[in-house]
Amino acid sequence: MSDKRESLNPETVGMGRRRFINTAALAGLTVGVAACNDKPAAAPAASGTPAPAPAPAAAHAGANVHLKPGELDTYYGLWSGGHNGDVRVLGLPSGRELLRIPCFVPDALVGWGITNESKAVMGTKPDGSLRYTVADTHHLHGSYKDGNYDGRYAWVNDKINSRIARIRLDYFICDKITELPNVQGFHGIFPDKRDPVDPNINYTTRVFCGAEFGIPLPNDGKDVNATEKYRSMFTCVDAETMEVRWQVLIDGNCDLTATSFDGKLAATNQYNTENGVHYEDMMSAERDACLFFNIARIEEAVKAGKFKTYGSSKVPVVDGTREANKDAKTALTAYVSVPKNPHGVNASPDQKYFICAGKLSPTVTVIELAKVLDWFDGKSEKLDDAIVAEVEVGLGPLHTAFDGRGNAYTTLFLDSQIVKWNIDKAIAFHKGDKNATYVVDRLDVHYQPGHVNATHSETVAADGKFLSVGCKFSKDRFLPVGPFHSENEQLIDISGDKMVLLADHPVRGEPHDFIIFKRDIVKPKQVYDLDEFPLAVKDAKESGVFRNGKKVTVKLTSQAPAFSLREFTVKKGDEVTLILTNLDKIEDLTHGFAVPKYNIQFVINPLETKSVTFIADKPGVFWAYCSTFCHALHLEMRTRMIVEA
Amino acid sequence: MSDKRESLNPETVGMGRRRFINTAALAGLTVGVAACNDKPAAAPAASGTPAPAPAPAAAHAGANVHLKPGELDTYYGLWSGGHNGDVRVLGLPSGRELLRIPCFVPDALVGWGITNESKAVMGTKPDGSLRYTVADTHHLHGSYKDGNYDGRYAWVNDKINSRIARIRLDYFICDKITELPNVQGFHGIFPDKRDPVDPNINYTTRVFCGAEFGIPLPNDGKDVNATEKYRSMFTCVDAETMEVRWQVLIDGNCDLTATSFDGKLAATNQYNTENGVHYEDMMSAERDACLFFNIARIEEAVKAGKFKTYGSSKVPVVDGTREANKDAKTALTAYVSVPKNPHGVNASPDQKYFICAGKLSPTVTVIELAKVLDWFDGKSEKLDDAIVAEVEVGLGPLHTAFDGRGNAYTTLFLDSQIVKWNIDKAIAFHKGDKNATYVVDRLDVHYQPGHVNATHSETVAADGKFLSVGCKFSKDRFLPVGPFHSENEQLIDISGDKMVLLADHPVRGEPHDFIIFKRDIVKPKQVYDLDEFPLAVKDAKESGVFRNGKKVTVKLTSQAPAFSLREFTVKKGDEVTLILTNLDKIEDLTHGFAVPKYNIQFVINPLETKSVTFIADKPGVFWAYCSTFCHALHLEMRTRMIVEA
Repeated sequence: MSDKRESLNPETVGMGRRRFINTAALAGLTVGVAACNDKPAAAPAASGTPAPAPAPAAAHAGANVHLKPGELDTYYGLWSGGHNGDVRVLGLPSGRELLRIPCFVPDALVGWGITNESKAVMGTKPDGSLRYTVADTHHLHGSYKDGNYDGRYAWVNDKINSRIARIRLDYFICDKITELPNVQGFHGIFPDKRDPVDPNINYTTRVFCGAEFGIPLPNDGKDVNATEKYRSMFTCVDAETMEVRWQVLIDGNCDLTATSFDGKLAATNQYNTENGVHYEDMMSAERDACLFFNIARIEEAVKAGKFKTYGSSKVPVVDGTREANKDAKTALTAYVSVPKNPHGVNASPDQKYFICAGKLSPTVTVIELAKVLDWFDGKSEKLDDAIVAEVEVGLGPLHTAFDGRGNAYTTLFLDSQIVKWNIDKAIAFHKGDKNATYVVDRLDVHYQPGHVNATHSETVAADGKFLSVGCKFSKDRFLPVGPFHSENEQLIDISGDKMVLLADHPVRGEPHDFIIFKRDIVKPKQVYDLDEFPLAVKDAKESGVFRNGKKVTVKLTSQAPAFSLREFTVKKGDEVTLILTNLDKIEDLTHGFAVPKYNIQFVINPLETKSVTFIADKPGVFWAYCSTFCHALHLEMRTRMIVEA
Repeated sequence: MSDKRESLNPETVGMGRRRFINTAALAGLTVGVAACNDKPAAAPAASGTPAPAPAPAAAHAGANVHLKPGELDTYYGLWSGGHNGDVRVLGLPSGRELLRIPCFVPDALVGWGITNESKAVMGTKPDGSLRYTVADTHHLHGSYKDGNYDGRYAWVNDKINSRIARIRLDYFICDKITELPNVQGFHGIFPDKRDPVDPNINYTTRVFCGAEFGIPLPNDGKDVNATEKYRSMFTCVDAETMEVRWQVLIDGNCDLTATSFDGKLAATNQYNTENGVHYEDMMSAERDACLFFNIARIEEAVKAGKFKTYGSSKVPVVDGTREANKDAKTALTAYVSVPKNPHGVNASPDQKYFICAGKLSPTVTVIELAKVLDWFDGKSEKLDDAIVAEVEVGLGPLHTAFDGRGNAYTTLFLDSQIVKWNIDKAIAFHKGDKNATYVVDRLDVHYQPGHVNATHSETVAADGKFLSVGCKFSKDRFLPVGPFHSENEQLIDISGDKMVLLADHPVRGEPHDFIIFKRDIVKPKQVYDLDEFPLAVKDAKESGVFRNGKKVTVKLTSQAPAFSLREFTVKKGDEVTLILTNLDKIEDLTHGFAVPKYNIQFVINPLETKSVTFIADKPGVFWAYCSTFCHALHLEMRTRMIVEA
């Protein structure tokens, strides 16, 4: 491999440009690349060099992303919100952020983490306080039907606390969160696309979750230094119930996740097959793996009772380690070798390939699904024969998107580029046709790109219109705002042979992954149904203060410009549950409810019901007011909470 | 007044368009307008009517707001974040959000509310938990020097809990929060522009805060129903120390706040001079007031000991009620009469006028500063002679911006319009020149506009380039995303005679107020100074675990791609204080620090130091990892926290 790289034309892999990139992302990389090539690499030092000038205007303009006032976007984007712990909804091509959907982390605007309903989704400690208030979302994917998005659900991970959240795409809300047992650093996530066995189930019923960190099992504070026993797991969550179905104990770790269109395999990249605990150990092996899971066999094994459980968890765990899966005909897992410390794994929209991006290797590896299946079926002697291409594309390949026309777009973190390459030609080149020019185009991006995705990229409907890339560093691309820089989401037109950079959009770090789909995929409801809420106060006449000892229920409704109760009185020390239904049923007529000094604030959408429970521990008069501008008399829209001493 | 309105040409005040506006903001308005005009108004019903088609493209294109990739904005915007509880930093004219500055509410991304340093700013309960986790920011203003912004500070209010936060504009961070005593519903905020007495103090040293709700004094649960005794106050906060200097007890309430350029007066609009507790009481009087405060006299009174204190607060409170201030020559306050339930009050950049927007009256009232000062000086018999114009502009006037060329731009909430009008011509019309056509232009906006501001509007440097308007309802202007709609910030070119609508920008509700200034006003620092942090770990060699009984201090540094400690061990039950300094000093090289299951996550910018304190109550191995993409080996950048059982 090192030979291969040394012989590379620097222009082809963008090494010329690499010298000009002023970024600390390269700091210390000599270590990484040196390890990769067994000799010191030519990576530049991190300091000093000036930032490049803005890219010159593209030769042709590309698609128009500048909508006129009132014009609607043609695509939705769903973006993970990074350690904001939420999900972003964008309109594209304008790049405008239309909504943030609270998930793992409290949201003061809507009252997520304040209302009883949201706390039930988020999870609480025995004392009623929230179990967690931080999160780190990375990967977001939508539910599938017939290989395309069906607009029912999206799922997103929380890496810090190993949680998965589901988004309902009718109301654009998070409705369920599940914490995975036995793992730490849950990172990759991908729904299946159909059932591996039942042909009638042509839609998503499982979500797969890869965990990154090896830990003692159980992780109870004993055997903490026996690092050779640290293990990671791959988890399957039921798409409907959101319960954990099963887990697979593995060697090495899980990074990104992907699934085949036929429902038969899930895959995860492994950057730490070494089970190392220090970074130089994690990159000591020359090759790591892309690990495939045979879903049907795993579920048969679970059914047959061939599993263990760990600690207090009741989740069945099957054995997916190398040692236990040497016989292809019974194997649950298959470890395909890929160059060291790979990052993204993506399934091509022609349903044939998995593309692994090399990260510390300047390569992408193309694995053919049919050949992995052949191995499981005993038709192939050597699992690594499933590798149909392994070609160099540039420095720091991380993730790959597709245009549905046979081309792949891979981010090059170190080169700060997107490389467009042709999959068939890469396969031909790998086979020996050295005239096969698989690199089609390169585009500088700004700077250090991570995730990339194109319109309907990982679906059978990939349309090759727009591509978005999440650049981790923005440096000089926006007005300075102090030490904490935004990241830079760049939008690229991929409809022609040449990529055209269209726009820079700053974004609060650290969003990662995203999907982009045509606007007709979802049919959002703009007003709630009263019957969705068991506590709904369906008529203003039901309003009042209802006492049961020290427990008091206050029922309220809102209709602009008034709440149904002008005032209500409780006693100091009461446990008050306040239930508010917004009886305004006109689209966009949202109210808010804020209570001074009582740490209560939430918004209440048309025909929505929310409740809060609190101890009335402060006597006095408290003006609870509408906090969302609703009406000319909005400021006058208040109710008076009187807490008698 | 009702006669005046009835005789109005509907086209002039936009009543034609009003009939077509499909908005629930009008629901119930018959009550409001009826009260205003003593007879039922012709406001349309709220339901059914279809939304208007997008506005046709403007006759001339207006300024280009569509920056090419890499082009920088020319203006900064600072926006209050509504009940997000933070401050937004925008680049204009692109409208891109460059940063959100956490203030009143925890922010999971940066660790605001998680780190010890942020908790010290936010305020904690005796048990160390945060006092508040919700807020409702409305109004944001910057510090002044010589009548223009000087880029030192900005201040923003929290209406729910009556707090004021200060933003340092060198690092774009919140550094102080003060909770105001004796008040509820702190709403309007404005810094002074110079000292009323000392000519050398030509910059901001005070910030004025108006409180909206009347409450019992003290608010201790006694006398809760004696509503005639409910009172509100106006507060002065020291711009440097952020301590409360003094308060003024008043009749009625405070809504928006403004200050004169000469430093002599502060003003607040009052929509509830009635001291009503129900909305129809709040709008029963035909006229309310714009209340002026004589700053020099108030401070003399405080100095002379002419004040009271309330409850446990030590803040001096002077008497600004009507009864106590009848004698102009000694008065601390002056109540200028304005039509019922006014909303915004804004000081014109020519330093001469305060403009009060009528809200329930279709008028703006122009009050001449010099004439209010004359009254305080005993040179004017009748305070209301300071009203030099009171003219009709349309339905629901809320706020006014200025272009520095003598024109004012007032939002018409009910008409969903901006009306551009000439101040001098309005004064001439009011004086009797019925040929003075003071309305210059009208522009439909989408929909129900609240705050409006123009570039450098309320400064002597008002340049009349761009105007931004916060539309409370977006309705059909963006792709649907469920029941909770974004609001719509629209950008308008005001450089010509006609206003030109340039762009729609969706924004998370409920941002309110904002200021826009040229980019050379601020000089942000992009890397911290190590010496700003008393706990800084200045050298990786200082890292380690330092035990003092059950208290353990862990000192760490970060330099991509590693933390200075590869692992650290504590014991179950220890109180751990972890201090992390980011020794990477290259711009934009931010790291993060996340600890699974321990609810810890924060980002750490170049040369910044942060700390967290927690009880190590869960035994096991916990991989603390870098949560902000920093390097090709970012995923491998971890340290292992071992909690021994």
